[in-house]
Amino acid sequence: MFREMLENVRERCPLIHNITNYVTVNDCANILLACGGSPIMSDDIGEAEEITSICGGLNINIGTLNSRTIPSMLAAGKKANELGHPVLLDPVGAGASSLRTNTALKLLDEVRFTVIRGNISEIKTLAAGSGTTKGVDADSADRVTEENLEQVCGFVKAFAERTGSVIAVTGAIDIVADGKKAYCIFNGHPMMSSITGTGCQLSAMTAAYVTANPENVLEATAASVCAMGVCGEIAYERLEPMDGNSSYRNYIIDAVYNLSGGILEKRAKYKIL
Amino acid sequence: MFREMLENVRERCPLIHNITNYVTVNDCANILLACGGSPIMSDDIGEAEEITSICGGLNINIGTLNSRTIPSMLAAGKKANELGHPVLLDPVGAGASSLRTNTALKLLDEVRFTVIRGNISEIKTLAAGSGTTKGVDADSADRVTEENLEQVCGFVKAFAERTGSVIAVTGAIDIVADGKKAYCIFNGHPMMSSITGTGCQLSAMTAAYVTANPENVLEATAASVCAMGVCGEIAYERLEPMDGNSSYRNYIIDAVYNLSGGILEKRAKYKIL
Amino acid sequence: MFREMLENVRERCPLIHNITNYVTVNDCANILLACGGSPIMSDDIGEAEEITSICGGLNINIGTLNSRTIPSMLAAGKKANELGHPVLLDPVGAGASSLRTNTALKLLDEVRFTVIRGNISEIKTLAAGSGTTKGVDADSADRVTEENLEQVCGFVKAFAERTGSVIAVTGAIDIVADGKKAYCIFNGHPMMSSITGTGCQLSAMTAAYVTANPENVLEATAASVCAMGVCGEIAYERLEPMDGNSSYRNYIIDAVYNLSGGILEKRAKYKIL
Repeated sequence: MFREMLENVRERCPLIHNITNYVTVNDCANILLACGGSPIMSDDIGEAEEITSICGGLNINIGTLNSRTIPSMLAAGKKANELGHPVLLDPVGAGASSLRTNTALKLLDEVRFTVIRGNISEIKTLAAGSGTTKGVDADSADRVTEENLEQVCGFVKAFAERTGSVIAVTGAIDIVADGKKAYCIFNGHPMMSSITGTGCQLSAMTAAYVTANPENVLEATAASVCAMGVCGEIAYERLEPMDGNSSYRNYIIDAVYNLSGGILEKRAKYKIL
Repeated sequence: MFREMLENVRERCPLIHNITNYVTVNDCANILLACGGSPIMSDDIGEAEEITSICGGLNINIGTLNSRTIPSMLAAGKKANELGHPVLLDPVGAGASSLRTNTALKLLDEVRFTVIRGNISEIKTLAAGSGTTKGVDADSADRVTEENLEQVCGFVKAFAERTGSVIAVTGAIDIVADGKKAYCIFNGHPMMSSITGTGCQLSAMTAAYVTANPENVLEATAASVCAMGVCGEIAYERLEPMDGNSSYRNYIIDAVYNLSGGILEKRAKYKIL
Repeated sequence: MFREMLENVRERCPLIHNITNYVTVNDCANILLACGGSPIMSDDIGEAEEITSICGGLNINIGTLNSRTIPSMLAAGKKANELGHPVLLDPVGAGASSLRTNTALKLLDEVRFTVIRGNISEIKTLAAGSGTTKGVDADSADRVTEENLEQVCGFVKAFAERTGSVIAVTGAIDIVADGKKAYCIFNGHPMMSSITGTGCQLSAMTAAYVTANPENVLEATAASVCAMGVCGEIAYERLEPMDGNSSYRNYIIDAVYNLSGGILEKRAKYKIL
């Protein structure tokens, strides 16, 4: 199943409109190309709807959020909804400031999202309508573990049910769920958190996966999350003694570029709850 | 001839003012340093003219175009014209939105460009005054091939004649032309399109080449385009089995850093039409 | 001493708020992670103070300065002062335009900086209240050499005395001084100037060092500057024949990731004046 999801991205080469932050934007573009998609970055209100219209999917990321681009996010999101394009939300830092929390909530209110991908603290903030994230990383108190996995899955499914979106909560264990079914994914490596933007990159790639697989949003999202984890592992295995997080960043994108459906299937580690 | 162009960049170390997009800006800065130039990025109307004045050349790139920086592009462009500095336009995504098409046309109207570099769809959009690009990549219907090469060269020369600019159309085959003479360049590798921003990087580097070689704009542009292609080949040859587009990006900039005039001359593959 | 400074960063994992330019922002985030800190980038006036409040330190960098973010810099800087958080200023390009010079001076006027880090031309501009930098690189006329070292140290100490900030002037020889004591640091490699943003990266890392070592600002700044130089050396030693400035950039961040307190102490080359 995951194999097919990946191969559809390479075959259909979905064009993804990204309204995203300026920290990790280059990596988002390169990972989209690596997975077989095609990126276009555009955030001005003067062209946001038009750019969305020529694309297949939309990726909205609120990192380095600023007042100029909020209207663009709303306009592009609504246009994508109107056209039936998949839309993904990455609520970077929701809970860390009122601006981010409120903007994420406003987006949730006015745009129907196909997928919402964040860390557990960000997703809890969206679900609660308020929150206290410590910066852009998940709060350690919120951590998903084997012990609380079932409980967190229940929470994620309920939020998915309520929003009508597939929810992807990523961390040491990833959960990808709709209202009924949750994939718990065990791929990945802790060193991925020593690179800026693995989350943003995953969001961009997931937008490509769901755009290429519109009939299987849940599985496409799970495949993308799993692919990122597998690539984190492959890249880790490739590290030489002098390598650090900068080479690791390159190796992850390289691994996405080289990932085949067969390897993805073979290395995928997940269970369904 | 190309050797001399390259060596002049290393010797004269031209300082280039870049008003550019936030996707590929870091790569543009690093390739400018790699080729022997020096970058400064600045896009605020409060300093655009002043920064242009202390530089040798100006590179205007309309990727991630926004309303705040359009006046800066116009002001810097006019100031550069006034000072006799070379100015390059990279009309990223012209044809993909009215904002980009109209801004590119307005820039063409109000600023005299020394060089315009884009893919064939972008250049056709500028020539026609309207267009339908698919995102930021060239439309496959527009592709330059051995079969239509002569015809496309005619079109490019005519557009060069009309604008008074050297036109660089890059793709599988690159064409660099003024009104009378076209260089058709066969260097490069298809994998270059799997990295974001090889076009932006080439534009930045070309601004350095023409600034260091003001008496030979056509040849300097052809040398820069050829250098980029040669470096794409060298970087490709360097790839190891686990490398992908991220390492390839690094290797291309590395190759620019190490490129000598002798290697450029030796590997250059072009004909003049 | 330097060892302890470095180890405190790894242990305390300071969260740093960065208001910075879009050229080198990704490298700043990755070097913060590499040294053991944690980055958050945010520049909108709607959240600047709130983000500063949840962080331990603030890094203000005026590269690609624009009118939208100047009020955010001032607001965040004042909030950090109020909370007793360390604040660092990187006056990129001060002297190159009135906008940058005046903004840097206004920041100096309204915010108390714990550390100011720049090249010699930028620091001279701040001290003089005006200047003529050539772009974002130091003017060669200003270069710090063994011959003028004592004299420059005097100038730097006087400026430190006047501002109450630790001043870090980086170049071939680095000077880190408060009003009484100057560390002259001889680590580093000339190739570091062939990468964009080694200065910005150093500023971000220094913000982490002083945030993790609030009782030893002078030594923490010297340790950070020394660490960057040592990593420039280690990265240089790692270069293979085909590597250029792009690989070198990665290797420096990798070296920061792998740097131990022991290696830092062992390779540190400095004298105190």
